[in-house]
Amino acid sequence: MKNILITIPVTEIHKERLNSIAQDCCIRYVPAVQVTEEQIREASVIIGNVPARFIKASENLNLLQLESAGADPYLAEGVLSKNTVLCNATGAYNRTVSEHAVALTLSLMKKLYLYRDAQRNSQWIDYGAAMSPAGAVVLVVGLGEIGRQYAKIMKSMGSYVIGVKRRKGTCPEEVDELVRTDDVDTVLPRADVVFSILPNTKETVHFYTEDRFFRMKNSAVFINCGRGNAVDSGVLLEALRKGQIAAAAIDVAEDEPLPADHPLWKQENLVITPHVAGTYHIPYTLERIVDIACENLEHWRKGESFRNVVDMETGYRR
Amino acid sequence: MKNILITIPVTEIHKERLNSIAQDCCIRYVPAVQVTEEQIREASVIIGNVPARFIKASENLNLLQLESAGADPYLAEGVLSKNTVLCNATGAYNRTVSEHAVALTLSLMKKLYLYRDAQRNSQWIDYGAAMSPAGAVVLVVGLGEIGRQYAKIMKSMGSYVIGVKRRKGTCPEEVDELVRTDDVDTVLPRADVVFSILPNTKETVHFYTEDRFFRMKNSAVFINCGRGNAVDSGVLLEALRKGQIAAAAIDVAEDEPLPADHPLWKQENLVITPHVAGTYHIPYTLERIVDIACENLEHWRKGESFRNVVDMETGYRR
Repeated sequence: MKNILITIPVTEIHKERLNSIAQDCCIRYVPAVQVTEEQIREASVIIGNVPARFIKASENLNLLQLESAGADPYLAEGVLSKNTVLCNATGAYNRTVSEHAVALTLSLMKKLYLYRDAQRNSQWIDYGAAMSPAGAVVLVVGLGEIGRQYAKIMKSMGSYVIGVKRRKGTCPEEVDELVRTDDVDTVLPRADVVFSILPNTKETVHFYTEDRFFRMKNSAVFINCGRGNAVDSGVLLEALRKGQIAAAAIDVAEDEPLPADHPLWKQENLVITPHVAGTYHIPYTLERIVDIACENLEHWRKGESFRNVVDMETGYRR
Repeated sequence: MKNILITIPVTEIHKERLNSIAQDCCIRYVPAVQVTEEQIREASVIIGNVPARFIKASENLNLLQLESAGADPYLAEGVLSKNTVLCNATGAYNRTVSEHAVALTLSLMKKLYLYRDAQRNSQWIDYGAAMSPAGAVVLVVGLGEIGRQYAKIMKSMGSYVIGVKRRKGTCPEEVDELVRTDDVDTVLPRADVVFSILPNTKETVHFYTEDRFFRMKNSAVFINCGRGNAVDSGVLLEALRKGQIAAAAIDVAEDEPLPADHPLWKQENLVITPHVAGTYHIPYTLERIVDIACENLEHWRKGESFRNVVDMETGYRR
């Protein structure tokens, strides 16, 4: 009897769905923090981000279904055997991340972070001019599914959206204009909002250089919900201190958790949220992960090809 | 030669427009704070909210075009003569107020105010579950143009919108369901979000009673961008302290500015902005007010009937 190990925080209803797909298997539900090396060694299928160091290229493992979009720890030499197909949860986080990004964008536009600070000092202060999403030029750097969903919401509020994408293709309907990542410098000066949702690749490390912040409007706001290493902390801090941009919001940092003594914490025109755009903070996300897991479990049972297979070269969905 | 007094903060382009409509009149542009009683007494038309006490039922005044939607100070006995038509700026604030209200709503849903507080203490803390606008039941209490615009944005993010209106009519397309204000108690228990944009009338004073907060879900959020007196401060504070609702945001208060020693300031799950949803914080608002003023100036020149005439009984546009 084959073993299936499930470490994602499923409900009873989810268990019923998963059990019904693999009735002739032994399914173990184990909270992520309690997983043992032995349970991993015995499993033919794992659903959840188990510690990579426990896998040790287990020959038994046919399918590792991650609960994340990123797959970095599982790409290293010696983690997975040739027998293992690695699948990710790309798609499950679109809604939660795009919503969080819109919330951060509007919070910057309407200066809600300054009003919160004033509130804590019992001060009724009018901070003057706000930005309007209507008519704003919004750059979406990284036009995957999250970027497109963000674009759609901003467009519904009247923004003009420029999508920035590695390879230029047909312009998706959520976007007014499309440019290649290589040409981003030509559109940065037009943007009122720069939303970064770049994946973590060699090309995107420290993508936002001093020169790129310099090209942005002094009145622009910058939001990063992609990967922390797209922005060098020092460069961002300087851009904010010098007023090269008006304000920024980051849900990700180069160092996570951001050390308590890091100067970013104290920068008034920067909003920091602690990598909470994704995770399981809205129920929808877990529902979508269970959908993907059920689909792939069924494919595994029937010997079919999988959904969301990770390209071991790029670390992203093929 | 007739005198026109303009106190709104117009640009040179606006002046050209206004001047071209009333070439045979003497137009004075005076900043609101510098207006004298004499200037008011001489004016046939005033564009801007001049001090009501200076008007003294001036017989010369044909048209008082306000820059606000509210007209309270001008409704009192002895302020305006029978010769004066009072017009307001209803419509000009739809965009700015609805955007601010959506920003507050998402800020509550995603707990951005808590993350800001944590940031000021250099703390990387995950506050857990967030709300999603997608699938949320959103009550819009007061279904004027601002309410409808707010409804439209929330709907574009997947919310189910219930409009609450004094008189039931046909259901506008921005809204999924319509109920009468008298029946609000039946829908309060279904709402994840209660957005109040009620006008200031006898019926709306302290509309949100203890009982009504009690009817709301413990997980609901409440946003008030209408009039401060729709909510008794003490009642709101108790509802937040007892956890009858999860959080609230107010742009208006019963006492404005809110006194520095008021207990509302210190309530953690309450977000306060200092009546900044409206005003001239985005350029669009002034553009629309100038549009209304130009239109009414033209009507005055031609002896036509005006747009946005205030009903002296209700204080709102007829």
